[in-house]
Amino acid sequence: MQSFGQLFRVAIFGESHGECVGITLDGIPAGLPISVADFNHDLSRRKAGAKGTTPRKEEDLPKLISGVFNGHATGAPLTILFENNNTRSSDYQDLKAFHRPGHADFVAEEKFQGFQDYRGGGHFSGRLTLPIVAAGVIAKKILTSKVTIEASLDEIGGETDLDKGLQKAIDAKDSIGGIVSCRVQGLPIGLGEPFFDAVESRIAHAIFSIPAVKGIEFGSGFASAKMFGSQHNDVFVDEKGTTATNHAGGITGGITNGNEMLFRVAIKPTSSIGKAQTTWNRERHQVDELTIKGRHDLCIALRVPVVVEAMTAMTMADYYLQYLAYSAK
Amino acid sequence: MQSFGQLFRVAIFGESHGECVGITLDGIPAGLPISVADFNHDLSRRKAGAKGTTPRKEEDLPKLISGVFNGHATGAPLTILFENNNTRSSDYQDLKAFHRPGHADFVAEEKFQGFQDYRGGGHFSGRLTLPIVAAGVIAKKILTSKVTIEASLDEIGGETDLDKGLQKAIDAKDSIGGIVSCRVQGLPIGLGEPFFDAVESRIAHAIFSIPAVKGIEFGSGFASAKMFGSQHNDVFVDEKGTTATNHAGGITGGITNGNEMLFRVAIKPTSSIGKAQTTWNRERHQVDELTIKGRHDLCIALRVPVVVEAMTAMTMADYYLQYLAYSAK
Amino acid sequence: MQSFGQLFRVAIFGESHGECVGITLDGIPAGLPISVADFNHDLSRRKAGAKGTTPRKEEDLPKLISGVFNGHATGAPLTILFENNNTRSSDYQDLKAFHRPGHADFVAEEKFQGFQDYRGGGHFSGRLTLPIVAAGVIAKKILTSKVTIEASLDEIGGETDLDKGLQKAIDAKDSIGGIVSCRVQGLPIGLGEPFFDAVESRIAHAIFSIPAVKGIEFGSGFASAKMFGSQHNDVFVDEKGTTATNHAGGITGGITNGNEMLFRVAIKPTSSIGKAQTTWNRERHQVDELTIKGRHDLCIALRVPVVVEAMTAMTMADYYLQYLAYSAK
Amino acid sequence: MQSFGQLFRVAIFGESHGECVGITLDGIPAGLPISVADFNHDLSRRKAGAKGTTPRKEEDLPKLISGVFNGHATGAPLTILFENNNTRSSDYQDLKAFHRPGHADFVAEEKFQGFQDYRGGGHFSGRLTLPIVAAGVIAKKILTSKVTIEASLDEIGGETDLDKGLQKAIDAKDSIGGIVSCRVQGLPIGLGEPFFDAVESRIAHAIFSIPAVKGIEFGSGFASAKMFGSQHNDVFVDEKGTTATNHAGGITGGITNGNEMLFRVAIKPTSSIGKAQTTWNRERHQVDELTIKGRHDLCIALRVPVVVEAMTAMTMADYYLQYLAYSAK
Repeated sequence: MQSFGQLFRVAIFGESHGECVGITLDGIPAGLPISVADFNHDLSRRKAGAKGTTPRKEEDLPKLISGVFNGHATGAPLTILFENNNTRSSDYQDLKAFHRPGHADFVAEEKFQGFQDYRGGGHFSGRLTLPIVAAGVIAKKILTSKVTIEASLDEIGGETDLDKGLQKAIDAKDSIGGIVSCRVQGLPIGLGEPFFDAVESRIAHAIFSIPAVKGIEFGSGFASAKMFGSQHNDVFVDEKGTTATNHAGGITGGITNGNEMLFRVAIKPTSSIGKAQTTWNRERHQVDELTIKGRHDLCIALRVPVVVEAMTAMTMADYYLQYLAYSAK
Repeated sequence: MQSFGQLFRVAIFGESHGECVGITLDGIPAGLPISVADFNHDLSRRKAGAKGTTPRKEEDLPKLISGVFNGHATGAPLTILFENNNTRSSDYQDLKAFHRPGHADFVAEEKFQGFQDYRGGGHFSGRLTLPIVAAGVIAKKILTSKVTIEASLDEIGGETDLDKGLQKAIDAKDSIGGIVSCRVQGLPIGLGEPFFDAVESRIAHAIFSIPAVKGIEFGSGFASAKMFGSQHNDVFVDEKGTTATNHAGGITGGITNGNEMLFRVAIKPTSSIGKAQTTWNRERHQVDELTIKGRHDLCIALRVPVVVEAMTAMTMADYYLQYLAYSAK
Repeated sequence: MQSFGQLFRVAIFGESHGECVGITLDGIPAGLPISVADFNHDLSRRKAGAKGTTPRKEEDLPKLISGVFNGHATGAPLTILFENNNTRSSDYQDLKAFHRPGHADFVAEEKFQGFQDYRGGGHFSGRLTLPIVAAGVIAKKILTSKVTIEASLDEIGGETDLDKGLQKAIDAKDSIGGIVSCRVQGLPIGLGEPFFDAVESRIAHAIFSIPAVKGIEFGSGFASAKMFGSQHNDVFVDEKGTTATNHAGGITGGITNGNEMLFRVAIKPTSSIGKAQTTWNRERHQVDELTIKGRHDLCIALRVPVVVEAMTAMTMADYYLQYLAYSAK
Repeated sequence: MQSFGQLFRVAIFGESHGECVGITLDGIPAGLPISVADFNHDLSRRKAGAKGTTPRKEEDLPKLISGVFNGHATGAPLTILFENNNTRSSDYQDLKAFHRPGHADFVAEEKFQGFQDYRGGGHFSGRLTLPIVAAGVIAKKILTSKVTIEASLDEIGGETDLDKGLQKAIDAKDSIGGIVSCRVQGLPIGLGEPFFDAVESRIAHAIFSIPAVKGIEFGSGFASAKMFGSQHNDVFVDEKGTTATNHAGGITGGITNGNEMLFRVAIKPTSSIGKAQTTWNRERHQVDELTIKGRHDLCIALRVPVVVEAMTAMTMADYYLQYLAYSAK
């Protein structure tokens, strides 16, 4: 189902070329100050327009249609809508013959028996990450200013010099992947549970909900598979639980341990590429050349960090509320 | 909470040195044939005893205390218990002074305010994966014989020659990590959802519930971050959706696409090591040397593949039942 | 949380005098035909205007802003909005001094610390039943035409002659309660579970979500408490499970038994009354007379039957989808 | 599914004539003192043996097999088992020909296709309320001593003189129904939500999970349907929200209002009766006389009050933990 969370719960809806995309947030503490301006910073970070991103430009103005009154959360569900204005569905007309490689076109048609809204990817579109970023703004407020969440793009196409990585894609008239890392500071010790509600479990659940994510690792991650225990173990150096290293990425036994939480995310290259591809033509019943028109991101990873932050904030805000239930006196 | 799943739902309980560990499974279709012998194969794959695994040997006999009647699932919840017989809690006596590095001792004490059962890791123990393997046996039956799930250990300490990797740890008197891969064949097209119930989301959720997992990647995974779209896209070669490659790992847009599902999991080295470690002594209030007695796995990754299979089976059985609801005529 | 259901899931939002009220439905089978006209019949049954109902008239046009494409459900979440146009918040200005007796004003202020939207009851308003009726329309479609759900108003103020009961309230310049019954025919045998997912449990859960409901009974209900077992037991008269009587109201052991499902619901009188009441004045710190302006229903029970049908349809559609999962071959 | 609750969550399992019945409780705050003796009082209240109850006597000793360590909750799931010792399955041998009227035999066979454990009602048995009473003991502790929950049997067969009511059944060699009321004092104002998580919704959900319950009403309940608003409204008499009456039964807008919470429950007569019944014989394919052997309760309502308390405690403990999350500073 398109919902996530237990105490702080979100549910998304909408299509890329429909009337709007939106989200409903439930479980926001009453009294949280909320204004439209609060969303500006994070929404602008997600926006298109920079080098390597789609030329489709939307205003992306959040409409808060419920749950806010006199500048504060009421405690009732908060629904945020974003209208779709700048759609060019005509770009998708000649796609009827093709299932675009790497896209959800094929599975959507199989799963939904041809009834899916195929325009611009419909409900499968990356545009659905827009309301998620808005939810992240609220979640960050719930976590209070003691907690800071910062995601950044570390690599494009294997290059830590991002311009150099992006240029490879521009030169090749192709799309390209990247690595996003996320660091969270200020979390209390004790969020999470062993096993099914491990912090890694729920963070990974949320992060893989972002289109184009194909991998995640916490702390030393895949490198830990090559390490000895004596190298990997974070030894304690004082009474408070401070450790000499942070190979665990801030989570032990599924629970935050007071260290910086740290994870890295692999973003695959955008499926839509300007370059011609050779794939099955469903009308001519043969392999044919496909050139995708539309307006797409050369490197979607450029726009992902703020979405990773939002998913992380949503997940941790939910844990935080649960933590408050058990630490209240 | 210690439960997972929607239609096919499991809940685990128990401690390493308590009376038993167990699991309750709900949502099993009535009539599924179930006998104690069904569990032998997978339980023995998880068992200790081989080179590199703990010398703690348990019989691991599953006691089916509800939900089975005359050799078939009744449709009511099925609870499986495993008694703990071979415990040596005395090994943990001198651990009061230390929080073992890499273990959950510290977070458990902080989160549960000192009330946790600390013997052998208590509820945080890898012994809880025993009932999970049992649940996997049932889940595999629900998926029917059309679906095959096979996980294997691909690397130890970076070596694909597993003996060579293990020998490094033996020589170093240390523990060591590894990589487990999992392949699933025969899944129908259309399991999963875009966004919050993406197959990657729920598989990752389940897999990170396994202690010692620090990373997961699907298909090309982290390698895809270095690729061009034209390299990564799986182009279609026929009417049925067959693709020339499988970089997506069998999942597109969060939904199974008919290809083999494929993911890789990073397992950190066992936290308990025979070698001395230098860490904080809570009684002497100084950094001290700690040598962990107890009986532990040199390379826990050796025992993880069948647990990965079980988690995968549980997750996919749940999707499969939901799929049946929507494909029923 | 403001959501309900497992496979077929709804989430409501909005306030009485805010921009709109709305609902998101998830889990609708793709391909279900849906048009705006489908909602006319049930929405008009809920409408105000008849004798005994509020003079606040809204157009109540459903806006389907996602999840429908070319006249069919896409399989993605369907969000329906209803704009609020005919609000007169000025009616509520002088209510600051009073918590209206019988209303949620007091608990809302306590729970949400004064941040609730108090205009017209805010999120607590009966206007939220409007999107629920819309959800019921979809749920009825999922149940197919084999299932019929009919709720009716059986009594007003203890009178089965409804006009006579209503006249008592008109004469007294007061509001008045009533009894609604609901009958469901055509359900397959086997929906529901023993214990926590008993049909009575989930139907009651949904029905008590309707404002003003204070009681529910299934089959013989409270009368059964006075009966002997030999009177109450529904004896079987044939191979198919036909029974001579239906004291159980169509549910045995929490599971539909093939008989008509039958329950009765007690609706309290509308809390807002034209008549003066003597209650606490928070500004003058004394008991004072309160006369409620605003536009209200004399007998809210008149408008409840279609809401009861909707809640019933939503609940049973969810069970039905789960049933399909387990009866699929 | 056989589970209930969000933060404080329970899951039941077991059969009447299987090895045991049991329950797993998750979300118990670590450190809660728990001993086997704590269960004595409530378990003995549920016990058989008094006039009008079944002669089947079980020791009903709770075995706490996980989640408790050194006399306190650990924070990990707590599983409680009760062995079945005093079973006489032979009593059920000649029932193969009959589906007992009023019992779940028929629906169980239809739903579970004949695979259900039919001995003594299997999973449908009232014996499953035993672990629920145990869970109630823990839930009452979570609610602290400030909250008191008291349920009592108010009527048997319509008589408030309980002996007189019971004697009617004894004289008639029949079973008989009753009314149980429940009062909860000391709840904070603000538990619950409008609509789908209304206190009435979740209490009713839990109460209808008790076998034999056929109706519930809060406060004035069904009587409110005959009342004017001016009679029913609870007017405020002071600053703190004290009201002159309590027709609402302590809940307004789905939320606790500080008054005593009050509801009444209708219990149908036990389905198993000593008296002969005429029902369908599945072996002889004709209507035949059935006399039920086995050991049964003449008036199951006698044993229900402590189960009603347990369900109420479980429901309110869950709300209370959620309340703490939002009232924590």
